[in-house]
Amino acid sequence: MNAQESWEGIPASRARGRFITFEGGEGCGKSTQIRLLAAALEERGYSVVQLREPGGTAVGERIREVLLARDSDGLDPLAELLLYEAARAQIVSELIRPALEQGRVVLCDRFADSTLAYQGYGRGLDIELIRRLNSAATAGLAPDATVMLFIDPEEGLHRAKGATGGDGAGDRIEAAGLAFHRRVAEGFSRIAMEEPERVIAVGASGTVEEVHRAVLARVLDVL
Amino acid sequence: MNAQESWEGIPASRARGRFITFEGGEGCGKSTQIRLLAAALEERGYSVVQLREPGGTAVGERIREVLLARDSDGLDPLAELLLYEAARAQIVSELIRPALEQGRVVLCDRFADSTLAYQGYGRGLDIELIRRLNSAATAGLAPDATVMLFIDPEEGLHRAKGATGGDGAGDRIEAAGLAFHRRVAEGFSRIAMEEPERVIAVGASGTVEEVHRAVLARVLDVL
Repeated sequence: MNAQESWEGIPASRARGRFITFEGGEGCGKSTQIRLLAAALEERGYSVVQLREPGGTAVGERIREVLLARDSDGLDPLAELLLYEAARAQIVSELIRPALEQGRVVLCDRFADSTLAYQGYGRGLDIELIRRLNSAATAGLAPDATVMLFIDPEEGLHRAKGATGGDGAGDRIEAAGLAFHRRVAEGFSRIAMEEPERVIAVGASGTVEEVHRAVLARVLDVL
Repeated sequence: MNAQESWEGIPASRARGRFITFEGGEGCGKSTQIRLLAAALEERGYSVVQLREPGGTAVGERIREVLLARDSDGLDPLAELLLYEAARAQIVSELIRPALEQGRVVLCDRFADSTLAYQGYGRGLDIELIRRLNSAATAGLAPDATVMLFIDPEEGLHRAKGATGGDGAGDRIEAAGLAFHRRVAEGFSRIAMEEPERVIAVGASGTVEEVHRAVLARVLDVL
């Protein structure tokens, strides 16, 4: 393990499976699109594993509770970053690597790019430190492809609020305000520009079915 | 914040208070010695704060539960490391820095050296990565002095088992076996040799009162 190993270092394709992450701001429709893509791939005979960060493991779900609870408002930004990285290390070693070694297609709802976008561009933590932590926590495992869904932050927040129902308050992260979410969106854009080979950028303002068809076509190219 | 900032970088004494950590293997008597030292310092008019890693904050206590629970046996070593660092970032920003700024004496039960000794020397994780994470999580804050209590690992484990009572099973870390604890003890020895200016090495096989007198004399020199 080497903290300086570059994030792009080891493509997951060294294993037999394929590792595909989904990224994007609040309300971009990731969860729906992952479900639809998983079903479409399974129809075509692929063995698919659906995961979500920071949960997906028993340890990760407990970390997720600390991160999302409203009573964590006093959470230090650096502690928050390290908690995400801890959950990442666990999901990589417990679930992602074994599934890839079995030749499966792993679809993961959020991964290292979200940490760069939210903690780095959004909260202003050191980008280079985050890249190093990402690399350390994944022991260099990088996605074969990343589906990045783009939506106007205001429209996305509006959608996300609807999804959480009744009080419209959302969780701690959704409550962080529009300016924050604009910085996050800007972060995702930069990542997409810096790594066009890996990132599949898809506009998410169309209908669910339109977005799904775009995602499926691009992902089938990768597989 | 800079992950490459050296661990020895910023002595806590830049603030008005004094930051003193306690380190050592299982059963070395840290908790008892901290209590006695705190009382002795308060008698002399110092304002003392007692903390323990990885707990001490609401966030840290929740992380501590994840770390120490027996059902975390599937915990990835890297995830474990990052959880300790997350708790550290929180306790530094929420409690240690503010107390030092108020001119208080902070006594902390375990800090960055424990991570080097347990996760590095004990579990074999990359020492350089741990130094970097320690430096990042503390944003460069180093103890003014570290009281390191040395005891034979076998004797220490025997004492620690007694302290946990009934079933003698201890928690997950104490159950990791004598060979592991010998590596941890070796790690503490190396740290003491590498940083004689900071580390106050004290033999802990004497009586509680003997060890206390030795600790108090050395700490008063620092204050």
